[in-house]
Amino acid sequence: MLKIIVDCMGGDNGPTPIIAAIKNFLKEHEDVEVIAVGKLEELQELDGICRIIDAPDVVPMTAGALDVLRLKNSSMMVALRTMKEEGIDAAISCGSTGGFLASATITLKMIPGIKRAALVTAIPSLESGKYMTLLDCGANNENTAEELCQFALMGRLYAQAVHGNLDPKTYLLSNGSEDEKGLPEIKEANRLLRERNFPNFMGNIEGRDALLEPEIDVLVTGGYAGNIYLKGIEGTAKMMSSLLKDAFKMNLSTKIGYLLSRKGVNAMKNKMDYKAVGGALLLGINGIVVKAHGNSDAKSFESALNLARKMAASDAVNKIKEGIESEGSK
Amino acid sequence: MLKIIVDCMGGDNGPTPIIAAIKNFLKEHEDVEVIAVGKLEELQELDGICRIIDAPDVVPMTAGALDVLRLKNSSMMVALRTMKEEGIDAAISCGSTGGFLASATITLKMIPGIKRAALVTAIPSLESGKYMTLLDCGANNENTAEELCQFALMGRLYAQAVHGNLDPKTYLLSNGSEDEKGLPEIKEANRLLRERNFPNFMGNIEGRDALLEPEIDVLVTGGYAGNIYLKGIEGTAKMMSSLLKDAFKMNLSTKIGYLLSRKGVNAMKNKMDYKAVGGALLLGINGIVVKAHGNSDAKSFESALNLARKMAASDAVNKIKEGIESEGSK
Repeated sequence: MLKIIVDCMGGDNGPTPIIAAIKNFLKEHEDVEVIAVGKLEELQELDGICRIIDAPDVVPMTAGALDVLRLKNSSMMVALRTMKEEGIDAAISCGSTGGFLASATITLKMIPGIKRAALVTAIPSLESGKYMTLLDCGANNENTAEELCQFALMGRLYAQAVHGNLDPKTYLLSNGSEDEKGLPEIKEANRLLRERNFPNFMGNIEGRDALLEPEIDVLVTGGYAGNIYLKGIEGTAKMMSSLLKDAFKMNLSTKIGYLLSRKGVNAMKNKMDYKAVGGALLLGINGIVVKAHGNSDAKSFESALNLARKMAASDAVNKIKEGIESEGSK
Repeated sequence: MLKIIVDCMGGDNGPTPIIAAIKNFLKEHEDVEVIAVGKLEELQELDGICRIIDAPDVVPMTAGALDVLRLKNSSMMVALRTMKEEGIDAAISCGSTGGFLASATITLKMIPGIKRAALVTAIPSLESGKYMTLLDCGANNENTAEELCQFALMGRLYAQAVHGNLDPKTYLLSNGSEDEKGLPEIKEANRLLRERNFPNFMGNIEGRDALLEPEIDVLVTGGYAGNIYLKGIEGTAKMMSSLLKDAFKMNLSTKIGYLLSRKGVNAMKNKMDYKAVGGALLLGINGIVVKAHGNSDAKSFESALNLARKMAASDAVNKIKEGIESEGSK
């Protein structure tokens, strides 16, 4: 039986949407055990539904890494410590990214050989059912060329383990497609990946083309640019969905038009809804650690639970570890 | 009569769409004189329609700044030199951004006191008819905190001169809304803007919120992150428009739905079409210099001509110069 431990506190919306998500998730997945961590009095609704661990403290959203480590009895730290001690398969939190990264690194350690963890997420592609793997989308600010090369390797191993894509095409996100474009670390990473004959490395790509060309499987970037890019995509998708709603409300004709076309239109909106993706994996940590959106609602947190389950079931982190070990021993 | 000089070469699609755009533009604007610069034999269609200046060389898209400066008889350099010598109101090129920036800086000089030019563009807002001013969207790679503060000032003066927004709300784009989030230069720019009581400075904002909250007038970022952000927005908008097209083609019902709702839907698609914006102003140069999209089609290049005309008519650059002088003398 797979086991997932959940930090129920620390999100923008408190434990309520998380409790709802756990209930729904457990109804649909009898093969998973969920362990909820948080203030006992706020989790009573889960009594009899899953195991609950009391943790009196909450990591505030604004907490820096050091603050988090000091709060030893926070729901975040208790969840990670219990994961380590009991060999639980995966942990999820919608608390501060920096705090979760720091506490996961300290508690679970990094995969040997990996310098920095990266947040990895899936971006919908024009092609039906296809997703692009983006990393780092915000675990770090700046990254060195060597770290970017490691992200390329982790991204490749992730696409293999999770998406079954045996030879993914890997690109570096830059402000131009030419090798000589970009920040110094991007140019250097491009040179290193070419020099090392990184399998199926295709060079630099601009952010617009990365979304419109179907053949991009893995897109590598430093954490700051990756976060800005991801948020630009999410914001535009939400903005257009909202504008589309207004467009259909324009007059009687457009309202009837909506009724007739809503099946297709809603499928499109769902595809672009970032809350459907639910969260991002902290890749590079020695364990499955999912960062859910800070403003998660029940739907979004349930997606994060599904992501954690998928990761645990596909044994992704162990496959990535093995891939990195075999790369290191070359 | 306003005069606009056009570098007709150097775009991805050659001079054909630019010629078409000039013809259309001149039909609609009798108060503007256009001067076309490029290979004479490729511009014959404009004979009798506007003044043509022969320039034998073309700046390739991949040219670095130094290559461009060496090509003294390129259409780009000839256009800028003629602008300077004859006091022409504005110049447009869809050639390489780096090349255009370097040649414009050398030929026209910077506005006194400004350290770096910034590409400024308009991002559609959820609110009808409203645009957000984004800078820098790609003139630079990295920028110092002091440069970011200058971008904030130029952005404010631009919003005042061009959008008539007398007290625009200014934000720094970052990976979190807290003052302590972001790259070191963003954190320092935040501190400096607060210390100097920059008018209506609102702090940091994430890229998603910047698109969804209606009150953001000016969004300041370094050139690399700004380019990545803009391309993410453009790519998502194009991707969703394309997905929407497919959604309406799903079956007979959705096809009829489209016919009934197309007025509203197409207005929304046009609003989000980056080609409708046409180009970005190189703000900080002592003159109106518009960088059109490298892959401009006729529609997009005509928008760039309209942008140049609007800038010239509103005397934007002189107003910005005066604003910077008055700031410097405080």
